[in-house]
Amino acid sequence: MNLADLFTPRLRELLPPLWGPSATSGEIPIVSLAYGLADPLVLPREELVEATAQILATDIDAVLNYAPVAAELVTLVAERLRREGVDAHEQQVLITYGSSQILGLLPQVLVNPGDTVLVEAPTFMGAVGLFARAGAHLVGVPVDANGLDVEALESTLRDLRARGVRPKFLYTIPTFQNPTGTTLSLARRQRIVTLAAEYGVIVVEDDAYIDLRFHGEPLPPMVALDQEGWVLRVGTFSKILAPGLRVGWAYGPQALIDRLRIVKVEGSSSPFVTHLVARFAAEGHLDTHIASLRRHYAAKCATMIAALRRELPELSFVPPDGGFFIWLRLPEGMSTHKLGPVALEQGVEVLHGNRCFADGSGSEYIRLAFSHVPETQIEVAIQRLGNSIRTLMG
Amino acid sequence: MNLADLFTPRLRELLPPLWGPSATSGEIPIVSLAYGLADPLVLPREELVEATAQILATDIDAVLNYAPVAAELVTLVAERLRREGVDAHEQQVLITYGSSQILGLLPQVLVNPGDTVLVEAPTFMGAVGLFARAGAHLVGVPVDANGLDVEALESTLRDLRARGVRPKFLYTIPTFQNPTGTTLSLARRQRIVTLAAEYGVIVVEDDAYIDLRFHGEPLPPMVALDQEGWVLRVGTFSKILAPGLRVGWAYGPQALIDRLRIVKVEGSSSPFVTHLVARFAAEGHLDTHIASLRRHYAAKCATMIAALRRELPELSFVPPDGGFFIWLRLPEGMSTHKLGPVALEQGVEVLHGNRCFADGSGSEYIRLAFSHVPETQIEVAIQRLGNSIRTLMG
Repeated sequence: MNLADLFTPRLRELLPPLWGPSATSGEIPIVSLAYGLADPLVLPREELVEATAQILATDIDAVLNYAPVAAELVTLVAERLRREGVDAHEQQVLITYGSSQILGLLPQVLVNPGDTVLVEAPTFMGAVGLFARAGAHLVGVPVDANGLDVEALESTLRDLRARGVRPKFLYTIPTFQNPTGTTLSLARRQRIVTLAAEYGVIVVEDDAYIDLRFHGEPLPPMVALDQEGWVLRVGTFSKILAPGLRVGWAYGPQALIDRLRIVKVEGSSSPFVTHLVARFAAEGHLDTHIASLRRHYAAKCATMIAALRRELPELSFVPPDGGFFIWLRLPEGMSTHKLGPVALEQGVEVLHGNRCFADGSGSEYIRLAFSHVPETQIEVAIQRLGNSIRTLMG
Repeated sequence: MNLADLFTPRLRELLPPLWGPSATSGEIPIVSLAYGLADPLVLPREELVEATAQILATDIDAVLNYAPVAAELVTLVAERLRREGVDAHEQQVLITYGSSQILGLLPQVLVNPGDTVLVEAPTFMGAVGLFARAGAHLVGVPVDANGLDVEALESTLRDLRARGVRPKFLYTIPTFQNPTGTTLSLARRQRIVTLAAEYGVIVVEDDAYIDLRFHGEPLPPMVALDQEGWVLRVGTFSKILAPGLRVGWAYGPQALIDRLRIVKVEGSSSPFVTHLVARFAAEGHLDTHIASLRRHYAAKCATMIAALRRELPELSFVPPDGGFFIWLRLPEGMSTHKLGPVALEQGVEVLHGNRCFADGSGSEYIRLAFSHVPETQIEVAIQRLGNSIRTLMG
């Protein structure tokens, strides 16, 4: 009798982990620009200890017992959506363990194996992995300096319809996109909302970085433009408070939220953590913190841009208006497969561009995260990157 | 174009929520004995504030950033298993958002719609709901004063095999069972482990209450008796620390743990909360707290038993050696459907026994939880129950 015979067909084969460890080296300490982690310098310590004491001093039964998610957090999310122009209703908010939980649960609601899902090319590698594991057929739509190319989107939708294919959803990161750092223009947002209704396709709008704007005016999220209920907005407290708390959320069509709630099999998220985040915000810390994060990351971004222009003046890139990333096209003919090992030898780790494309293309790009590395090490890292590229160019 | 057309077949229909709100009444405040919540009096306030300050004062990047689950918590679970006689390996431990997350994810790994799953009759209603939603065909095996009836189990397994059916798993709560409060004898534990290997069936051993023993000697969990790797032990910090933190775990065969990790789509559990629990334990608070909980709940249980014997001497029941519950058979001919409304009028809420049977039978039973209600209200609640029963008997 074999235990493995009991597994459901899709889990017979063991899938590789979605996340790998950072590179290490015996030689010199590596500065990593590979991952979009938060800067530990700006993780709020005292405020969280204070908020913990406050929530435990009040209604301990609501915070530490079996209890629903903090209603105050649901209200907070709805209020923040209203500030963005959404006529938000609390019952359409679902609080989850990070926004990645939503990306993992969505296919259970929407994807039968073989169903088509549209993703940006390039996009967030974690989302690609979760959709692909559910058996989705991923179709990439290109991104340019103004975000997702809506002409390409429309022609893709038209071609698919001609072949009888209705994609289940489009996954997009409209603001300070991961990995390109670009922002979808207002005109394109409006066009996408129109196309969604016309083609009956859900738009999954992952706006993880929306609050981390360094300059320029905010644009309305697509969920604010959506009159017909095709947009699911995905949000997170990971970028504006702390990833380690694991608090994300979704807002959108009631029928979709209701079903996401069902496939979230463990029930509602931690009362303790959701009360903690709500209290942090109620004390006024969240808005103050976001303002300080914007200044902090803007300075780090500016430092990286200046270092790149000094060190690698021949490379052009789109300077981001916010977020965590700069997307770099390597010199003609150079691939990240060649650059990666040389850069590690020089003591800098970058994310290989092909990790960001559903079809594995994109090895002419690298993604640089300025979020996690100490600001003093950004110049060192970019010098090492410059040396690596010059070494390969001979 | 209809959004609902995009849902996968099993989510077209909207399933009702697994959990309902407690009863309320405009007349008199209701004392509820319906749910196995923790007593708010013994939720540890100061120790958790202190532990929060400690974890944030040390490696904040590991606690608040994107990071793996606290390794210290994995080690703690393995050490506690070793104390129970398990030769535990850390890589076979999976930390989850409450043990209910494991019960929700298990069917994704093991159950194709129509597959057979064995459950105790009666059992934990939340588990039944999660297995049934996944399309499992649930077969009940009776429970007596010594826990699961192993003769009935063997004949069920034999009958199923004769019909070509290999059940995917047996779900059992061996210690201070929910809802009956009974404990599986050592001989039966050994027999179940033998039967599991013989019939190639996984045993899901949910030992949520194991540490809340009021008297008597602890028995080894089945995972400690299992030489061939058929037992998955499910554990939780909800009963021994705080449900609101949502921290549970599973330990078992590597191939099964690896697959549970894959279907836990949001990745590893909160670094913040897992470090918090590990620190609470490292400071020595967990063992002290468990000792104090055992005294606290033992006293409440004794109060309820005394009140029942005084108020309803004609009813016999099995006094539990630990846990949260007393299981009561109603007088001949009385059903919980009749008793429930009368009891609510009298100001006491109980759990209807039929909520604990996969086939909806069991309306001749009620479950009384002594865990959540303040000790001073236990006598009042049992008096009201006695009045209700006497009213119905005329």
